[in-house]
Amino acid sequence: MNRREFNWALAGTAAGIVLHPHVVAQGSGTLRVNGARLNQHISELAEFGKNPQGGVSRLAYSEADRQGREYVMGLMRAAKLDVSIDAAGNIIGRRHPAGGETKMPPLVLGSHIDSVPDGGNYDGDVGSLGAIEVAQTLAENNIRPKRPLEVIIFQNEEGGLIGSGAISGVLKGSELDLVSRSGKTIREGIKFIGGDPAKIASVRRRPQSIAAYLELHIEQGGILDAEKIDIGIVEGIVGINWWDVTIEGFANHAGTTPMNNRQDALLAAAKFIEAVNRVVTSVPGRQVGTVGRIQALPGAPNVIPGKVVLSLELRDLDAAKILTLYQKIRAEADQIARTNKVTFDFKEINTNMPAPTDPTIRRFIDQSAKELGLTTKVMPSGAGHDAQDMARLGPVGMIFIPSVGGISHSPKEFSQPKDIENGANVLLGTLMKLDKT
Amino acid sequence: MNRREFNWALAGTAAGIVLHPHVVAQGSGTLRVNGARLNQHISELAEFGKNPQGGVSRLAYSEADRQGREYVMGLMRAAKLDVSIDAAGNIIGRRHPAGGETKMPPLVLGSHIDSVPDGGNYDGDVGSLGAIEVAQTLAENNIRPKRPLEVIIFQNEEGGLIGSGAISGVLKGSELDLVSRSGKTIREGIKFIGGDPAKIASVRRRPQSIAAYLELHIEQGGILDAEKIDIGIVEGIVGINWWDVTIEGFANHAGTTPMNNRQDALLAAAKFIEAVNRVVTSVPGRQVGTVGRIQALPGAPNVIPGKVVLSLELRDLDAAKILTLYQKIRAEADQIARTNKVTFDFKEINTNMPAPTDPTIRRFIDQSAKELGLTTKVMPSGAGHDAQDMARLGPVGMIFIPSVGGISHSPKEFSQPKDIENGANVLLGTLMKLDKT
Repeated sequence: MNRREFNWALAGTAAGIVLHPHVVAQGSGTLRVNGARLNQHISELAEFGKNPQGGVSRLAYSEADRQGREYVMGLMRAAKLDVSIDAAGNIIGRRHPAGGETKMPPLVLGSHIDSVPDGGNYDGDVGSLGAIEVAQTLAENNIRPKRPLEVIIFQNEEGGLIGSGAISGVLKGSELDLVSRSGKTIREGIKFIGGDPAKIASVRRRPQSIAAYLELHIEQGGILDAEKIDIGIVEGIVGINWWDVTIEGFANHAGTTPMNNRQDALLAAAKFIEAVNRVVTSVPGRQVGTVGRIQALPGAPNVIPGKVVLSLELRDLDAAKILTLYQKIRAEADQIARTNKVTFDFKEINTNMPAPTDPTIRRFIDQSAKELGLTTKVMPSGAGHDAQDMARLGPVGMIFIPSVGGISHSPKEFSQPKDIENGANVLLGTLMKLDKT
Repeated sequence: MNRREFNWALAGTAAGIVLHPHVVAQGSGTLRVNGARLNQHISELAEFGKNPQGGVSRLAYSEADRQGREYVMGLMRAAKLDVSIDAAGNIIGRRHPAGGETKMPPLVLGSHIDSVPDGGNYDGDVGSLGAIEVAQTLAENNIRPKRPLEVIIFQNEEGGLIGSGAISGVLKGSELDLVSRSGKTIREGIKFIGGDPAKIASVRRRPQSIAAYLELHIEQGGILDAEKIDIGIVEGIVGINWWDVTIEGFANHAGTTPMNNRQDALLAAAKFIEAVNRVVTSVPGRQVGTVGRIQALPGAPNVIPGKVVLSLELRDLDAAKILTLYQKIRAEADQIARTNKVTFDFKEINTNMPAPTDPTIRRFIDQSAKELGLTTKVMPSGAGHDAQDMARLGPVGMIFIPSVGGISHSPKEFSQPKDIENGANVLLGTLMKLDKT
């Protein structure tokens, strides 16, 4: 049976499937995910790497990660996906169209289940289990999209988008030797979770090789929660530029060096941190700038710091704006260097280019949300996501749901079950609209 | 022979001692140390713990420390001192007056030979070997002061005035369990260098139990060098107050938390560091304030710091001035806390009260220097010294010689041989003037 033209929205009821009462309540005649089941799966996944004080530490390549992946593969099989682990260690669940396997570019849903240390149970998990729930809802309703459907659980998102980097081709071979937070190198980690690092190049996909990539995710910020909006439509994933800044003065005795004779690298660093804040907030917009890491050497209470190394991170949807801010910050640093008799050195550590989402997908997300009676807001993603790598392979879209209090990467991370269900339903709706194009 | 009224200044020549030509050249008829020998001893001591890249690491309780102490004890015996190691591990070299051993309060000279990691060869060494050189000069000239003479090489000055703390009674029993930079606890370290920590209380001396304490030391600052002055007359050792300051904000995602919604503990810390500098330099005087140590948590480039711990150290000769500055800094912290939505907590870690030197000893130092044709300057000691502990037991005086470039606690630490010789001669002259009182 060729389902290409099939009216999927009515298929569930037409096929006589008994919908979960909670789903039915949202509007009969429209396909819905099973929100209770989805939230149950989130609770069950939370057991793998659970911390006594709350939250989870499911570092990529840890035993908890491996067990969590086994659990998720079980859910994928139950959702009638053909499950495999690619050479990079990503979990791929595929369902071919009604007409059988095809080389047609797939519709891809995905996210990750690895966490930061002392993380929460929503970042990644909501999107991963939401994608599987969508697949299961389709399977239960005997609906096959006209294109192949893939659910990808990317490995090691938190450690630098490793799995999606392999698929999109941005992962460098040298990165395999980096030591991940699990203590294993990425190469060892990939073997540990069932991949084959020697064949990692084989997982790379060509540009235009996907029909679309959709990712459901918690906002990880407080905007939707504060403004009481149901769904965030991500207009793009911000570019992230990270520099390490080294400030060199002269270490000297804190007791014997008069105030007017110091070359205090930490005092200069303090002025720099203030300058970063002043520059970033001096122009309108949603750009952010952060100094998150600092080390002062030699680091004794009785020694004037001679050297400071700190991180500077700038994020915005517009790469040109990041550059302008950076130039202003450099000018401030030059000024501080002169007045404080220190030197500044900026070393570029990493640059992620901004990844805009696809306008059509944004429209479909908005329509799907509105059909469900949900409010929406277009917003950037300030955090990096696997979607930014997937944007190299085809159009991408991201759906945000509220994070209570905007808290993320914390055991206190929390999203309401209803918001999770809403997000999965918007993911389902958007997928089906895309499949009709 | 009762030497109480003996004119020691002429004793050397009167006794027919052949003085070293270099010493004679400084003015015949006046007793002088052997500068060449003293500088030779400094070079020889530098071998113990010598670093390939220059300077020395002779941490208290290290093998290099033990070997350096053996070397120094040999010099002391050659200087006709009766050498013993007290229960605290201090090396005591004693010479009784001509009339035999007595309970009369001794004249004490001293310093230390332990170093900081990657330290230099002048901090402590100049005063220790200078004191021994003075004793040897006296012995060679058959001069015995009318009071007992003691040379004390205090153990572990750099680790917190441990040896002088035991003698003056300020060392707490609990400090014995602290781990020193050698890796040993202080208790283990004392055993390692020949002391007996179980009997440490026995070394404690009463107030008024010393006639005077004199210490020769490098300035460890750049004032004498910059102003081309030969001798610093220390008017007192500054008080040192050290607090650990904890700033708590809220750690959050650097990408998803808008600038106006942050509680950035590091931004608040930056404003605090600037405020410390502003307050300390807002009033005239030689007070100093330093933030030398800082830790930002969690310390990732992509996380807004939620917590910062930093050190605050204030030094001045006037304890009341330190208190006033501290109160102003607290007021600034309160203001920063309000505007940045963070909290500040101040924890007092250590307080050394200012230790003024004795006016008579200062006058004797000045007279001794002038007699040698040397220029002098009265100045505070911004660094802590064993002299501050000894000030609890009797009048103290300190003699500074120039440090080239003001550099100390560094392999680049350097004092000119001529300045070292000058300092030892002033120490000798001051000792003899004191003995006449």
